[in-house]
Amino acid sequence: MPKTTDAGLRVLAFDVFGTVVDWHGSIAREVTALGLAVDGHEFALAWRAGYAPAMQRVARGELPWTKIGVLHRIILDELLERFAIRGLDEPARQHLNRIWHRLDAWPDSVAGLARLKRRFTICTLSNGNLGLLSDMAKNAGLPWDCLLSAEVFQKYKPDPATYLGVADVFDVQPHQVMMVAAHDWDLHAAHALGLRSAYVERPFEYGATAESKATPALPSDSLRVRDLVELAEQLDC
Amino acid sequence: MPKTTDAGLRVLAFDVFGTVVDWHGSIAREVTALGLAVDGHEFALAWRAGYAPAMQRVARGELPWTKIGVLHRIILDELLERFAIRGLDEPARQHLNRIWHRLDAWPDSVAGLARLKRRFTICTLSNGNLGLLSDMAKNAGLPWDCLLSAEVFQKYKPDPATYLGVADVFDVQPHQVMMVAAHDWDLHAAHALGLRSAYVERPFEYGATAESKATPALPSDSLRVRDLVELAEQLDC
Repeated sequence: MPKTTDAGLRVLAFDVFGTVVDWHGSIAREVTALGLAVDGHEFALAWRAGYAPAMQRVARGELPWTKIGVLHRIILDELLERFAIRGLDEPARQHLNRIWHRLDAWPDSVAGLARLKRRFTICTLSNGNLGLLSDMAKNAGLPWDCLLSAEVFQKYKPDPATYLGVADVFDVQPHQVMMVAAHDWDLHAAHALGLRSAYVERPFEYGATAESKATPALPSDSLRVRDLVELAEQLDC
Repeated sequence: MPKTTDAGLRVLAFDVFGTVVDWHGSIAREVTALGLAVDGHEFALAWRAGYAPAMQRVARGELPWTKIGVLHRIILDELLERFAIRGLDEPARQHLNRIWHRLDAWPDSVAGLARLKRRFTICTLSNGNLGLLSDMAKNAGLPWDCLLSAEVFQKYKPDPATYLGVADVFDVQPHQVMMVAAHDWDLHAAHALGLRSAYVERPFEYGATAESKATPALPSDSLRVRDLVELAEQLDC
């Protein structure tokens, strides 16, 4: 018997960076392994910190529609300058920029998604572009039914077109879609449009030594789970 | 060693209806099983025959952008009228229309795609909508890396935006993409834009008793294969 909470639920739409994959750990490890003259932890945080302002430039119309891969590269070039990191030629910069295509999944992600997929359509709803998400799924073995991205809707989250776009793609009502994310802003935006929501705790999203993430206020009907395996359990998968 | 024909090849983009899945057989079997007062073979052909004219109405601007699922339903309602088929209520019509979401794969498709996926990014490039392609992949076990559709580009094949859109999504040059299809028009359109091409013989696309498909003239550098397992062999997968 489905629980009350998931009656009619058909589609689970996942935020990806931080929710399904560990951007911080993956970048810190690679930067450290490369022997760059910078702290890997600090570099990962700085790269990620450039992301929201860059997307906002697109949202405000200061930049035309720009894929996240291009924004990541603009930020990377600024960081290499700021941290005075020398010796990365163009191919090396391109390779480093594509680290976002080969981020490692959290340890529970593949197992949790595989269970959820048996009962629901599981898709991404990420600001990452389709090529990035496709490479990432291949590298990390993420068994998506469909990749949806800001690139499909030409709007970045939290634009309403992205959340409502998921319902439209699958010909369902907004309440038949659940947004799954480790970030409260993403869930509040989805909730305001009638989607359901599930919050995934990712205490180490910003690194094991970073200050704990504050406990966020969530939409009243939101699920809260430790990881994607617990989400599968809560949804009877 | 890569063969000359596939040097630099990164992405295989597949037509789906007829190339990867057997629309004719799947529809004919279901219509027959339903006991509708119509020949299943004839009904399948008539439904498919309505598809190109419906898309052309969108391409000419007589209809706004319309997903193929909606076009399939318009055609279905016309056919039920034309064949004087009674007794299908609205839920039954909706269910029958979604047969396009549960078409059976040709027997070689899953094995061939699984091999090709090891070496290349494999995606759909179909006029089918994303929800349809997603359900189909789930039902038939098609291991796509990414679903691309006319819906993403808001243009139907053979509009150039669809073929060039594949290269753009994956940040590659057109010659690094191979269009794979059982229809020469699809390959010629791709070839004209610099994509490579592979023709898949599907002699039973229109049914085992239908007249043989004519041997088409293909782009000069096109591969020609019996099925997707042979394509994997030809591409050293």
